[in-house]
Amino acid sequence: MDRLTVPAGYEALEAGTVEAYLDGRPDLRSRLPAGPLTVREVGDGNLNLVFIVRSAATPDDPGIVLKQSLPWVRVFGEGWPLTVERAVREAHAYEAFSPVAAEALPAYLGFDEPRYVLALEDLGDLRVWRGALNDGEIHAGAAAVVGTFAARIAFWTSDFGLQPEERKARLVASSNPELCRITEDLVLTEPYLEHEHNWHHPALDPLVAEVRADAELRREVGVLKHVFRTHAEALIHGDLHTGSVMVGGGRTVVIDPEFAFYGPVAYDLGALWANAVIAEARATRLGRPDAFRAHLAAIIRASWDAFAMELERLWPERADTFLEDGFREAWLRIVWHDAVGFAGTKMIRRTIGFAHVTDIETLDEPDRSTAAASVLRIGRRLILERADITGPTALWSLAQDELAAPAGAPR
Amino acid sequence: MDRLTVPAGYEALEAGTVEAYLDGRPDLRSRLPAGPLTVREVGDGNLNLVFIVRSAATPDDPGIVLKQSLPWVRVFGEGWPLTVERAVREAHAYEAFSPVAAEALPAYLGFDEPRYVLALEDLGDLRVWRGALNDGEIHAGAAAVVGTFAARIAFWTSDFGLQPEERKARLVASSNPELCRITEDLVLTEPYLEHEHNWHHPALDPLVAEVRADAELRREVGVLKHVFRTHAEALIHGDLHTGSVMVGGGRTVVIDPEFAFYGPVAYDLGALWANAVIAEARATRLGRPDAFRAHLAAIIRASWDAFAMELERLWPERADTFLEDGFREAWLRIVWHDAVGFAGTKMIRRTIGFAHVTDIETLDEPDRSTAAASVLRIGRRLILERADITGPTALWSLAQDELAAPAGAPR
Repeated sequence: MDRLTVPAGYEALEAGTVEAYLDGRPDLRSRLPAGPLTVREVGDGNLNLVFIVRSAATPDDPGIVLKQSLPWVRVFGEGWPLTVERAVREAHAYEAFSPVAAEALPAYLGFDEPRYVLALEDLGDLRVWRGALNDGEIHAGAAAVVGTFAARIAFWTSDFGLQPEERKARLVASSNPELCRITEDLVLTEPYLEHEHNWHHPALDPLVAEVRADAELRREVGVLKHVFRTHAEALIHGDLHTGSVMVGGGRTVVIDPEFAFYGPVAYDLGALWANAVIAEARATRLGRPDAFRAHLAAIIRASWDAFAMELERLWPERADTFLEDGFREAWLRIVWHDAVGFAGTKMIRRTIGFAHVTDIETLDEPDRSTAAASVLRIGRRLILERADITGPTALWSLAQDELAAPAGAPR
Repeated sequence: MDRLTVPAGYEALEAGTVEAYLDGRPDLRSRLPAGPLTVREVGDGNLNLVFIVRSAATPDDPGIVLKQSLPWVRVFGEGWPLTVERAVREAHAYEAFSPVAAEALPAYLGFDEPRYVLALEDLGDLRVWRGALNDGEIHAGAAAVVGTFAARIAFWTSDFGLQPEERKARLVASSNPELCRITEDLVLTEPYLEHEHNWHHPALDPLVAEVRADAELRREVGVLKHVFRTHAEALIHGDLHTGSVMVGGGRTVVIDPEFAFYGPVAYDLGALWANAVIAEARATRLGRPDAFRAHLAAIIRASWDAFAMELERLWPERADTFLEDGFREAWLRIVWHDAVGFAGTKMIRRTIGFAHVTDIETLDEPDRSTAAASVLRIGRRLILERADITGPTALWSLAQDELAAPAGAPR
C-alpha cells in the first residue's frame, strides 16, 4: 500500500461543488426538483465522501446520495494511500447484486467512472443498524433480510446459480486485491501481532498478551485467512457488519459493498454474527431489557435460518442439478463452522485491532474494558472451538458464559 | 461445449509440413543439425498432435517436440469441439512452472500463438510412466520427484510464495474454464449418472448400479466438486496422472499441463495416488513380484513425504510470515484428506466413466473386470471414508483389503 494512484480527471467533491457537478449529470439532476439544493456531507466511514443532496425547498424529502472514494484511508489521512478504484469495485458489486437482491439494497443510480462518483437512493430516515442497536432499538425483521440477502448473492453469483464458465468470467472481473489486502492485514493478521495499527484498553493487557502468545489460535486464524483468500465461492459483500446495514420504516438495506470479491460465503455471515455478539456485550453492561436481549439472540438464529431457507427455496433453480439437497446440507455445515470462525476474527479485530466499534467504545469504564474483554474471549473461543459449535443456540450459550464469567480478565 | 473456435491463421500441422513450418521458425530450426529431418507424430492423448522432429542423419539423438492443439477432443472426433486456446493455457503453465521446477519439466522452447504450436525438449528415451508401470518397471525416484514438483508449484504460485496481489493477478491470468469444465463433467459428475460418455464392463453392472444409487457418495462427490471449482489455492497441473509423467535415464519429467488452473493443491496429489492404486490392481492380477508391489506402495508415501518435506524446506522463503509451522501442518492435513477424496474420484472415472486406462483395459478377462471392480470399490471408500484415513499406510491397507476381497463384486 505504498502507491498513491489518482487518475487523471479525479477531483474530490465538496459540499460547495456538488450542485455544479450535478449540472453536468442531467440523469441525476432530473431526479431532484428544480431550484436550489442542500448538500450535507455525512461520510462516517473510513474511506469515502458521502453527500446527501436534497431540494432546499423540501429538505425532509429524500433526494439522492453521491458517494466518492478518496485516494487514502480517511481516518488515517494521506499517509495511507488507497486507490480510488475501490469505487469501481463497489459499483460492480451493486450492478451484480441489484438484479438478484434489490429488496435489500438502495436503488443504484449509476457510476461516473472518471470522477469515481457512485449515485444511490437517498435512504431518508433509515439509520445505521449499529446505531439503532446501540440505542436499544428493535428492528425485528432486519436479521432475516440480511440472511436472505447473503443467500441470494451467494446463490446467484456462485456455481449454484451460474454456469461454471460464467462464474469464472465474473471471478476474473471481480478481483479486488487492494481491499482484500486490508481485510487480510487488519482482520486476519495484525490483531495477533504487535503492530502499530493496533490499540486496546490497558485493562486488557494481560488478556491481549495471552491471545498474542496463543500458537493454536494463530494457527487457526491462519487457516481462516487461507480460506478467506482462496475459497472463491461467490461475490460476497466482504464487510457485512451492522455498520453496513440501514434500518427503519420497515426496510432493511445493505450498503457499502466496496470490499466485494469472490470469497467464502461464510465470511459475510460471520461479520454479522460478530456484531450481534458485540451488541450483546454492550446490552449486558447497560442492563438492557430482556426483550432487547432476546432480539439480539435472534439475530444469529434468524439470519442463519433465513440464509438456509432462501438457499433451499432457490435450489430448484440451480445451474448444476448434480448437486442435490444432501450436498446443500453438507455445504451449509461447512459454511456454518467457517462463519463461526470468521465471527471470532471479527470480534477480536474490533477489540484489539485498528478499527474499534461504538458499541463498546461509547461505554463508560469499567464497562468498556469489561465488554471488550468479553468480546475478545468469545472471539478466541469461537475460532478455537468452531468445529464443535453446532448451531446458533450453542454459539449464543458460549457467548453468555463468557459475558457472565467472573474470573481472569477484567469485568 | 458447442462452439468450434478456430482462430484466423490456425492450420493443423502434418508430418509432411513440419519441416516447412520449421523453416519459418529459425529459433527452433537452429536447435537441430542442418540437413533433412525426420518427423514422427506420436500423440497418444485425446486432445493434441505431437511431433518428434530429429535430424535424419542422427535419428536416435533427441531433437525437439512440437505439440499443437486440435480444435476438438481427438478421441471423439470433430463432434466434440474444444478451443485450441488450451495450448495457450499449457504454454502459460510451462512459463509459470519452469522457473520454479525446471528439474521436473522438459525444457520449454517457446510458443507460436497464431499456430498454437508449443515447442519442447525431445525427451528421447524417456517413456510414459504408466507404460513403464504396466510393464512392471521400477523407477525408484519418480514418485518423490513428482511430489517435490507438486510442492514447488504449490508454494511458488500460491500465497505461500507470492504476495497476495501477485497471486490474484496470476489467478486472473490463469482462468481455464473449458478444461476445468471437462474435469467437472468427466471426473466429478458423469460417472455418478447414466450418461452417454460412460462405459464399463458388463460384469460390473450390479456394482455400478449400487454406486450410482449411493446418495451419500453423490453428496461427497458434490463436496469435492465444489472444492475443485472454488479452492483457488495455486496454479496446479490439473491432470497429474501417470500418463502425464515421463521416466527413464534417471530423470522424471512432468508433461501436459494444459489443464492447469488456480485450484486445490490436493487435486494433483489425488490424481497421482489414484493411478498408483490402479497400477497395484493390475500388479495384483498379474502376480507381479513383491519388489514391484513394494515400489507401488511407496509411490503414495514417497510422493506425500517429498511434498511435505519440500514445503517445509521452502517455508522460510514464504511471503507471509504470519503463517507458521503450525499452520503448514494444519494445511497439510486438509490437503491430505482432500487428496484422498480426489484420488477416489479419479479411480471411479477410470473404471466407469469416459476415459479408461491401459493398466486395466489391457488385462485379459476375468482379470480386467476384477481389477476394475476393485478400483471402483476402493475409490468409493476413499471418498466416503477420507476424513478417517490418516496417512499413506491406512490408504494402502484399505486398498489391499479391497484387492483381496472375495465377495460381492466379480473377482
